[in-house]
This record gives sequence, C-alpha cells and structure tokens, in this order.
Amino acid sequence: MPVVTERGRAVVLLSGGMDSATCLALAARREGHACHALSFDYGQRHRAELDAAVRIAGLLGAREHRCLRIDLGALGGSALTDPGIAVPREPGPGIPVTYVPARNTVFLSFALAWAEVLDADFIYTGVNAVDFSGYPDCRPEYIAAFQAMANLATRRAIEGRPVELRAPLIALGKAAIITLGRDLGVDFSATVSCYQADASGAACGACDACRLRRAGFEAAGIADATRYQPGHRPG
Amino acid sequence: MPVVTERGRAVVLLSGGMDSATCLALAARREGHACHALSFDYGQRHRAELDAAVRIAGLLGAREHRCLRIDLGALGGSALTDPGIAVPREPGPGIPVTYVPARNTVFLSFALAWAEVLDADFIYTGVNAVDFSGYPDCRPEYIAAFQAMANLATRRAIEGRPVELRAPLIALGKAAIITLGRDLGVDFSATVSCYQADASGAACGACDACRLRRAGFEAAGIADATRYQPGHRPG
Repeated sequence: MPVVTERGRAVVLLSGGMDSATCLALAARREGHACHALSFDYGQRHRAELDAAVRIAGLLGAREHRCLRIDLGALGGSALTDPGIAVPREPGPGIPVTYVPARNTVFLSFALAWAEVLDADFIYTGVNAVDFSGYPDCRPEYIAAFQAMANLATRRAIEGRPVELRAPLIALGKAAIITLGRDLGVDFSATVSCYQADASGAACGACDACRLRRAGFEAAGIADATRYQPGHRPG
Repeated sequence: MPVVTERGRAVVLLSGGMDSATCLALAARREGHACHALSFDYGQRHRAELDAAVRIAGLLGAREHRCLRIDLGALGGSALTDPGIAVPREPGPGIPVTYVPARNTVFLSFALAWAEVLDADFIYTGVNAVDFSGYPDCRPEYIAAFQAMANLATRRAIEGRPVELRAPLIALGKAAIITLGRDLGVDFSATVSCYQADASGAACGACDACRLRRAGFEAAGIADATRYQPGHRPG
C-alpha cells in the first residue's frame, strides 16, 4: 500500500496488539503522518507483546520506534504486572483484575512528553470503549479530559498550538477494527492480544483478550490469523 | 513535633527540594496523613536531589518512600536531562531550557497509579505558580485539569470516590514556603534545589533555582540554611 503525502508528525502508542497496530496503520497510511511509535516495558508478564510491537512498527513503516522501561509493576495492583494476582480464565463482572491502575494516563503522559520534544501535532491511541473490558481509562470522556489537561500542560499549549489527542478506534467494536485493519493492510498474525501469550507470541485462546479477539474475527467474517498455543486453539 | 492523629493515606511527590519537603511536612504533620513519598530517577543530572529525598522522607516520617526509575531523559528536550543542552547561569525570558516536557504530568500519572493501588485519598504536589520559573505545568488551571482527568481515570473514580489532588503551595511565594516549612520543622539544609548541585548536594548559588531560593530566605528574614559549593556562596 503506497504511503500518502506526509502530513505532520504523530506519536503513536503501540502495544503490539491488534488495536494499536490498526491505529498505527491508520495514522501512517490513511492520515499520512510521520509516525513515531512508542511502546512500554512496564513489567507486563511476557515479552512477546513487545517483540510484536517491534515487528509491527517495521511492517507499517514507523519513522522511529522507542520502547521505554517504566516501573509500573513496582507499584503492583494488577494481574498483568503482579505475579501474586492470577489472570482469570473466564471474564467476570466489573473492572477486571487485568486492569493496570492509571496505565493509559501514564502512557499518554509519556506520549505528551515525546510529542513536545518532537514538536509533533498528534498523539494516537488505539483505546476503544466498545469492547473495553470495563477499563475506566478507555472511555471517550476520559480521552476528552486528558486532552483538556494536555491543552494546559506543555510549551506548545502555551504557544497556542496544543497537541491533538486522537483515539480513532474509540467507537469501534473488535469486528470493525479488524475490518479496518485488514483494509489498511495490517498483518494480524504479527500482533499479540493474549494476556498469557507464550514466548513466541502464540495465544492461550481462553483469556478475556483472546475471547474478544476471536469473536471479532468471527463477527467480521474474516479468517482468524491468530497463532494459538498447541492444544489451545479455541472452539 | 508530634504527629497528629492519622487521617487517610496520601501519596506525596518528593523531589528533594524545599517545596516538596514543605509539602510532605504539611501532609504528614498538619493534615496527619500516612504519607507514601514518591520520587523519580528520571535522568536528571545529579543524584544529590534523590539522596536529599531519601533524607527528607526519613526526617519527616514518611510511612514509605519509593523511587521509580523512568526513562524521561531518553526522550530528551531539557537541560535537566539532556547533556547536550547547557543550564544557563542567568535567568532568561519565557519558558526556560530547564523545563522538562510534561514532567509534572508524568509524575502525577505515576502518583495516580500508586494512589489507586494504595487506595489513598490524596495526592500532594509541591508545585507553585508564583516563583514557577515559567513552567506551564505548575499553574492552578493545569492542576484543576489534571484533577478533572483523574476523576475519570481510575477504578476509585468509577466507584464515586476519586483521589483528591492537592497543591497546597500553589499560591505561595518562596518566602511564604520557607516560613511555612520552618514552622513545620523542615530542615532546609537537607534539601537540594540547585540545578547543578555537586555530589554532596552543595549548591552552585548561580542558577535560577539558587537565585529564587536565596531571595526567598532573604524575603522571609530567615537565615539561608543552604550548603553552597566552595567559592560559590552568593552575595
């Protein structure tokens, strides 16, 4: 897919999952931004997600990709960063234990810092509120409030040109994201959504994230490109 | 000074400077919170500030003190974290080169995460808007916007009991902060404000931070407890 004429710099949060990959594809291929991808090594349980982020940044032509080590795991409080809390095999009610306290706020804050240094016009995040697993910091009102805060936080803001936070997937369900990603040429087999992926990035097929992802492929009528762990391919 | 009856937990951002030390003293000794102090090793040029934070947390009876390593320096853009940008000897107009992009946003985001894990009711920051050196993220409207964002960002917020962000020094000048700190028993000789302190924490006496601090002691009519580097004691 040809790259369109470049329109400004963007910092794109890239987790290695399908949502952020689709978001990067949209920023780079549809909007034509020069994309600076940002990932975090924050004590999550597996490295496969970060390995996936490296692959995706390369496949989608990010201008640059940085991975910051942050000590979010040292603060505890989530099944994704605390070995003492088990990842559930079945989805439950309310905010799940995989919620990492203030994760998106921390990630967006670093994106804001880097956008200021790069003089970037945009920050992209792949959060979505439809299949959001109950996380408070994936809601449209949260994104709007972060934008309002960012409008006061930086040198660019004081100069009257605050960075614009975009969450283009926020109103899309998984099926719509998968369809959009396919149309933008995302290789979903390179992405990792599973909370318990193995070292190669193969998925467990059973956790919340795997269930949402599989249901998304089914609803979109697109073949599931996910690599599953031996003996764990779902239904 | 006796500790009053404990009233809830507070996360207190602690830099090692006089403002955050006074803020911790206020949260612990006047408000009676159980204080969890939070510092950052973010690529700042000297360790003396962090050594000071450790001393201050001990002197002021913080329940706990954590120092998180974050890679803010890897993003560049400030004289405080980028060896390629010189710290000026004289204050200049506008936002100074010592401004670290989105620093307070990043720090407050981690404080928000920790407050969620601790189930803390308060976050304290020692920012002030009077002698704020022109930093955008030290203004009252910025603090209010961060609070509005935090009110949507966390599990506690969804449960209807968002953490309360307090910036009790925001309207105080340096002289008022010094007077308050003295009244609360802060040992200012243990604090480091200088952008170019030596390994022992002794101050240069010439940078923006040193000038503001010295003028504050003079205006408060309190003897300057600062330790200066040999040959650098100002006027």
